[in-house]
Amino acid sequence: MSKKEGRRNKKDGTSRDLGERKIIKLIQSHLSAMPNIPVPFGDDVSAVKIGAGRIAVLKTDMLVGKTDVPRGMSLWQAARKAVVMNVSDFAAKGVEPMAMLVSLGLPRNLIQKDVEEIARGLNTGAQEYGFYVVGGDTGEAADLIMAISLFGTAKRKAIVLRSGAKAGDIVAVTGFFGKTTAGLRLLKDGYAVSKGLREVLLNSVFMPKARLCEGLSLCRSGALSASIDSSDGLAWSLHELATMSAVGFVINSVPIAEEVSRFAEFNGLDSLELALYGGEEYELVVTIKSRRWDDAEMAVRATGGILLPIGQVTRKKQVLLEMDGEKHLIKPLGWEHFRSKI
Amino acid sequence: MSKKEGRRNKKDGTSRDLGERKIIKLIQSHLSAMPNIPVPFGDDVSAVKIGAGRIAVLKTDMLVGKTDVPRGMSLWQAARKAVVMNVSDFAAKGVEPMAMLVSLGLPRNLIQKDVEEIARGLNTGAQEYGFYVVGGDTGEAADLIMAISLFGTAKRKAIVLRSGAKAGDIVAVTGFFGKTTAGLRLLKDGYAVSKGLREVLLNSVFMPKARLCEGLSLCRSGALSASIDSSDGLAWSLHELATMSAVGFVINSVPIAEEVSRFAEFNGLDSLELALYGGEEYELVVTIKSRRWDDAEMAVRATGGILLPIGQVTRKKQVLLEMDGEKHLIKPLGWEHFRSKI
Repeated sequence: MSKKEGRRNKKDGTSRDLGERKIIKLIQSHLSAMPNIPVPFGDDVSAVKIGAGRIAVLKTDMLVGKTDVPRGMSLWQAARKAVVMNVSDFAAKGVEPMAMLVSLGLPRNLIQKDVEEIARGLNTGAQEYGFYVVGGDTGEAADLIMAISLFGTAKRKAIVLRSGAKAGDIVAVTGFFGKTTAGLRLLKDGYAVSKGLREVLLNSVFMPKARLCEGLSLCRSGALSASIDSSDGLAWSLHELATMSAVGFVINSVPIAEEVSRFAEFNGLDSLELALYGGEEYELVVTIKSRRWDDAEMAVRATGGILLPIGQVTRKKQVLLEMDGEKHLIKPLGWEHFRSKI
Repeated sequence: MSKKEGRRNKKDGTSRDLGERKIIKLIQSHLSAMPNIPVPFGDDVSAVKIGAGRIAVLKTDMLVGKTDVPRGMSLWQAARKAVVMNVSDFAAKGVEPMAMLVSLGLPRNLIQKDVEEIARGLNTGAQEYGFYVVGGDTGEAADLIMAISLFGTAKRKAIVLRSGAKAGDIVAVTGFFGKTTAGLRLLKDGYAVSKGLREVLLNSVFMPKARLCEGLSLCRSGALSASIDSSDGLAWSLHELATMSAVGFVINSVPIAEEVSRFAEFNGLDSLELALYGGEEYELVVTIKSRRWDDAEMAVRATGGILLPIGQVTRKKQVLLEMDGEKHLIKPLGWEHFRSKI
């Protein structure tokens, strides 16, 4: 690689200065756009038409040891999480994954047992969500790298984009928020908590779940107008849905996990902040045609899951939190690589 | 990540001790096998049935800055090479790539200009072979990482595996070998060469080409019985084809590039070694039904390429080199991550 020294000046931001989202925009600006692409660049998954009204659905998401694997997480858990991260995006679009590939970058000090642990974690993740690892690549890298790519097919019209929310729709989520963020804070800053609470919060970090059954069932119900997964945090996901749909939201009930309220109260933290501005959580954030609410709720219940209404879609393009009769702006903040630190 | 210190003992080999191929076998042994998988694990690409006799063809191959980007290669070239590496595997199977995803790991000291160079390199690679980048992921990593995944579709029966070579078939390649290996030696050890020769050899390292047109045309001709790309070196590719097809080869004409002969002669190196035991070259190594040779040759010529016969397929499961009436074993050596060093 050519040396970087000597040719940098103050105008050139480093990748860390730029942040993940600006980098993605920058990269995209240099890419030729596929004509008639069935899913726009920047949605949870990518897609390609394969004829007869069907599309191939593709996703890649990479886990990097240094930024995505908190201290205390095993390699087995890290590998499983790498799979879950990708499945969650398929879940948000209502697409069943069929097969997975993995590019592994292995630090040279990993031993045989570590490699086996990684393989078992990848396989567990795939089996948990009903698909197979069909190929991959491996090489030496300074960091632990697991770049997963996921494949599935769908009817072109069945896929739920980020861009379909309409004023009057109901905003809903598939679970409560904040446990992962609280768990990460716990790992980083060492707060005092009971053993039971500690277990719940760390389990949320180490053993995340993707809402695949909920996502598939919700999409099949036909009640959804837009959908995203919450891996970049609830606030960020709401902003993404709002921006892509050219609408706004009024949120009147933030779905704070009960354990997060307890953790926050005990440690003098703001539970609302933990629930809104976290990340690495894999709930679905969706909008539902209001007259179809019951169908949506039933669809999720049939999978053993829950659907929590948290607000409404508005014409006014703001993401607001209504609390005690007052409205506050929800900031477009969330988890971002190059900038956020565990 | 849990700490590795203190729990390693002498029996545990590190990933470097194991080598890429053992690691892949180890990983595979922990993966559940997809039933009725249309392309066996370990071929150039992976595949999944998508109905109506068609398959989705998938490939991931990862470029790592430290091991795959020699000094002097620009980021634009590295990104383009990352694409070529993947396209070459599609070429070997006769499958047209339709779309690409990329997971990028960016060292934090990269500047905006670097990121743009990478994006342009990826796009150039995709455009050169007629497809589009449709999505990706980016994050911070210690190494430069480009994990590409490629997608296409094919008729299930049209794909050419590594396993179809039969005794009596002709072994052939799509070009001459050794330039990349000579170029890498030149970069590493600084041999004396003319400016013109230096340019040719380095161009082979910095601007590799995948034989996509040749591969597509060859597969369509129906004359192929087996096929592999030569990214792990000619000797290794021959051994792979032989093992997967349960046959042997007698090679009687090693396709040494004329420039490599000159480079070797001038510097007291063995041109045969450079051509056989290299890697990072993207020719196709194929076997052809002998009575279909003319069709195969015409198919490649129609693309502007060449097809060089180099030997025959034999029943005896050895890969031999016949020179001056004597037979020598070709060793199963080639490029291997974790072990080979640029």
